[in-house]
Amino acid sequence: MPRLEPYSRSLDYSYCLGIYPSLSLMEARPETAFRLLLSSQAEGAPGAEKLRELCREAGVREETADKVLRRESGKENCFAALAFKKYDCRLDASSPHAVLCQVSDGGNLGTVVRSAMAFGYRDVAVIRPAVDAFDPHVLRASMGAFFRLRLKVYDRFEDYRAEFPSRPLYPFMLDGAVDVDQAAGKAPWAHSLIFGNEAKGLDASFAGIGQSVIIPQSSEIDSLNLSVAASVGMYIFSSRQRNKQ
Amino acid sequence: MPRLEPYSRSLDYSYCLGIYPSLSLMEARPETAFRLLLSSQAEGAPGAEKLRELCREAGVREETADKVLRRESGKENCFAALAFKKYDCRLDASSPHAVLCQVSDGGNLGTVVRSAMAFGYRDVAVIRPAVDAFDPHVLRASMGAFFRLRLKVYDRFEDYRAEFPSRPLYPFMLDGAVDVDQAAGKAPWAHSLIFGNEAKGLDASFAGIGQSVIIPQSSEIDSLNLSVAASVGMYIFSSRQRNKQ
Repeated sequence: MPRLEPYSRSLDYSYCLGIYPSLSLMEARPETAFRLLLSSQAEGAPGAEKLRELCREAGVREETADKVLRRESGKENCFAALAFKKYDCRLDASSPHAVLCQVSDGGNLGTVVRSAMAFGYRDVAVIRPAVDAFDPHVLRASMGAFFRLRLKVYDRFEDYRAEFPSRPLYPFMLDGAVDVDQAAGKAPWAHSLIFGNEAKGLDASFAGIGQSVIIPQSSEIDSLNLSVAASVGMYIFSSRQRNKQ
Repeated sequence: MPRLEPYSRSLDYSYCLGIYPSLSLMEARPETAFRLLLSSQAEGAPGAEKLRELCREAGVREETADKVLRRESGKENCFAALAFKKYDCRLDASSPHAVLCQVSDGGNLGTVVRSAMAFGYRDVAVIRPAVDAFDPHVLRASMGAFFRLRLKVYDRFEDYRAEFPSRPLYPFMLDGAVDVDQAAGKAPWAHSLIFGNEAKGLDASFAGIGQSVIIPQSSEIDSLNLSVAASVGMYIFSSRQRNKQ
């Protein structure tokens, strides 16, 4: 078997670290997995047997790989990982989208992906420059939700907009014109929530592309954490859709 | 001047890293600060001059301390920090509280504190065992919000409850009885939202102490990130209070 390289963005494969995320991968995208890496301490860990079984069924080769697990996770207690091929997705035009512009922190991206899955946003657009969505630490922060949704990276926001020209867009801004509860009450099902970078948010030009939205918050703080703002936004919009049904 | 030690929980002082958080500290609790540490590259950084001015006014000694900044932040671009004395707070019985049981991740605690400030929860209880709330990385994740609110650590949840015996309690649980929007609509101003540990949540006994609450979410994910769950909960409860006014 070829040697498994330390993860880098330029590789055409990545690592899914942890038993629970690996189970998600085997359920959602088994065709991408090609090697199951087990710790010599994995025996008896919750879910380990189930993961081995799914891998056997899918013809994924199993091996003990303590060194690779330690290297990729940076931890001593990572019991399993899958090496899997990176893949492309196409977003679904008829579903709600979350759009992340220039997200720079991997933990934030992973957490937003986890919340997106939780709140019914199965289509996520990421606008460059951005953290690598296939980075093992992003996948881990998503707790495997990454594999269950569709994520597509665009070079520019305009490219996303050109692909989906007629959707109502809701940019989240500190000076948004309408509060999130109000905006959510009027949104159609197939809408796009747009969030900016951790440090700078969205630039002022976004106010003109759709209905800008504000999450009411104390003037004593600078802003919310990005994953918090995106999660609150997605929760409110999704709960108003539920209430319409 | 005595040598500044590497941060540890047992020290009676801590470090507030970064210009923006340090400005918050000087505005909210100037009496605790005792040394301003500047990078030799701090000149011209946004806010640096304002921070120096506040420190001069308060009689806080200023010094160049590149090594300490690098050591405590683990980064090359930390321009300023304050060494400050740890302090105790008393929670306000007449305000809404957020209660975090056994939070183990410093980034989560800092992010919850930032959201708590944003959504009007100026009183935060932390139940042990828990990450050290004065850890510089917790303070940094809070973006200085930590200094603007009251945080008190309790050995046991029962100690918190004994201090505030008559408040309505809302434990957030994956099998909560009522959804968060519904519960929030009926909550009085002085209520307590209770959140469990990252890995295990709250144990089943919490269902009996008050009105258990669920944040509706897809069955395809295991749970929400703790800081997301707490932020969504605080946002919904605070927005219902606003709407009552």
